[in-house]
Amino acid sequence: MMKIFTYQPFYYQKSALKFLVFLLIFNGCKSVQKQLQGNSSEIVNHQEDFMYQYSIIDALMAGVFDGDLNMAQLKKKGDFGIGTFNRVDGELLMDQGHVYRVSYDGSVKEVPDSDSTSAAFVKFFKADTIIHLKGNLTYEAVQEQLTEILNPNGIYALRISGNFATMNTRAERPAKPPYTTLPAHLKVNQTVFNLTNTTGICDGFLLPPYLARTNVPGFHLHYLANDKKAGGHIFTFTTSSVTVEVDIAKGFTIENNTNAEFHNVNLKPDRGAELRKIE
Amino acid sequence: MMKIFTYQPFYYQKSALKFLVFLLIFNGCKSVQKQLQGNSSEIVNHQEDFMYQYSIIDALMAGVFDGDLNMAQLKKKGDFGIGTFNRVDGELLMDQGHVYRVSYDGSVKEVPDSDSTSAAFVKFFKADTIIHLKGNLTYEAVQEQLTEILNPNGIYALRISGNFATMNTRAERPAKPPYTTLPAHLKVNQTVFNLTNTTGICDGFLLPPYLARTNVPGFHLHYLANDKKAGGHIFTFTTSSVTVEVDIAKGFTIENNTNAEFHNVNLKPDRGAELRKIE
Repeated sequence: MMKIFTYQPFYYQKSALKFLVFLLIFNGCKSVQKQLQGNSSEIVNHQEDFMYQYSIIDALMAGVFDGDLNMAQLKKKGDFGIGTFNRVDGELLMDQGHVYRVSYDGSVKEVPDSDSTSAAFVKFFKADTIIHLKGNLTYEAVQEQLTEILNPNGIYALRISGNFATMNTRAERPAKPPYTTLPAHLKVNQTVFNLTNTTGICDGFLLPPYLARTNVPGFHLHYLANDKKAGGHIFTFTTSSVTVEVDIAKGFTIENNTNAEFHNVNLKPDRGAELRKIE
Repeated sequence: MMKIFTYQPFYYQKSALKFLVFLLIFNGCKSVQKQLQGNSSEIVNHQEDFMYQYSIIDALMAGVFDGDLNMAQLKKKGDFGIGTFNRVDGELLMDQGHVYRVSYDGSVKEVPDSDSTSAAFVKFFKADTIIHLKGNLTYEAVQEQLTEILNPNGIYALRISGNFATMNTRAERPAKPPYTTLPAHLKVNQTVFNLTNTTGICDGFLLPPYLARTNVPGFHLHYLANDKKAGGHIFTFTTSSVTVEVDIAKGFTIENNTNAEFHNVNLKPDRGAELRKIE
């Protein structure tokens, strides 16, 4: 069962809250939450509605920039998601089974199945809930509104579509071995794109705090313009209206990177503070 | 391909190290590590050699003592592992597909399929490597020796068997709602068992630091005497000889607890320091 509701946090904040409260009461206080958990009997795929990730964020942070999973294999784990490629050669976005690379020069290309990833986070996407947000919205405001609605301990895939007055993203130049850390690499190899009046999708995840070290806690979204001419890792955006498709996962699978560097890297330090600086 | 080698860290420490070094060189420097990763083509089961866990350690720490996964369902995820039951009613040990409960009164009983767990960590166990350790060994010494051999970023299931001169374990009394935290519960509801001259198995996991918050980083083992008359969560032991079966996992699946309390609990605090106090 899919629920669609409109949430207008800025123009009609009080009435929107009343509307949400009404929904909660009308549905017996727990039904919005329950419905946001997804209905497993309706979702039939061989991954059992679990999110999947190859490698972990802390390994990428520490400079494990190569992996052994190619796009053909990744597509067996999900049809939607984000990540990067070997040598951190650009930003990965997967939508409806197609994988795109946003390169440091701003170009977008569909990626051949033979290319490999050093870190990717995917899911078979099926929206459980659709939320419409309207108003004078920033990325931060969208995050705040969704945080109010969604459970802080849930694992959510999010597909946010709309027209964006401004969209601020980045993509990175591929690294050459010997690799440095991701923050050090981004410092001098990151291109920032300041897009305006762009229509497209923001694909990614909202993850709970206990997945720190393995992934990015909170919101992590990549952008792809509908004309496939721009995109990247999202820093900020502004919009007057977005549609948010929410797909809650039952859980989470981590597949360790089999690259030799994964075995040699020091994963003891908590890299959370460093991670927040580059997000 | 399974490798068996004997490691005598105390009596023959230098020669044992030489033997290990020889093995590493003889096999081309990486083969012991590669072989410890398991050979996926040889391991055929429907979980693809992944570890599975129901709920996360931080939720259990915070007092989410009930879950919705019963033993029949858990046995579909693995035939080996550890955990607890609803109401934290004793220590769970699964071995060769049988689930045992070690109760606070020290008794051990096989558990009916209808009983449920609030947190359990399991795998289909198939040893990739067998290591024999001999000497005047404590639990800490066994941990040190295994830490030297195994990769710090790997996910390992361990089955340690032998005769133990001493074995120090615990099991806990079931909680009554409203629940407190796990440390507060254990403080007054934990029985410690000081076993002597006992023969049995220590089943559990060695996990990497990035799984903090979701599970117990480092070693986490439960004990079951061969006569099924004693066991529990292991604090310490002493032995002169153990056989360590090592099964390296390709990855890790976390299934979120669907109990309502999981959605209400605050999972933001890092409970690592509290966890180390009760391990």
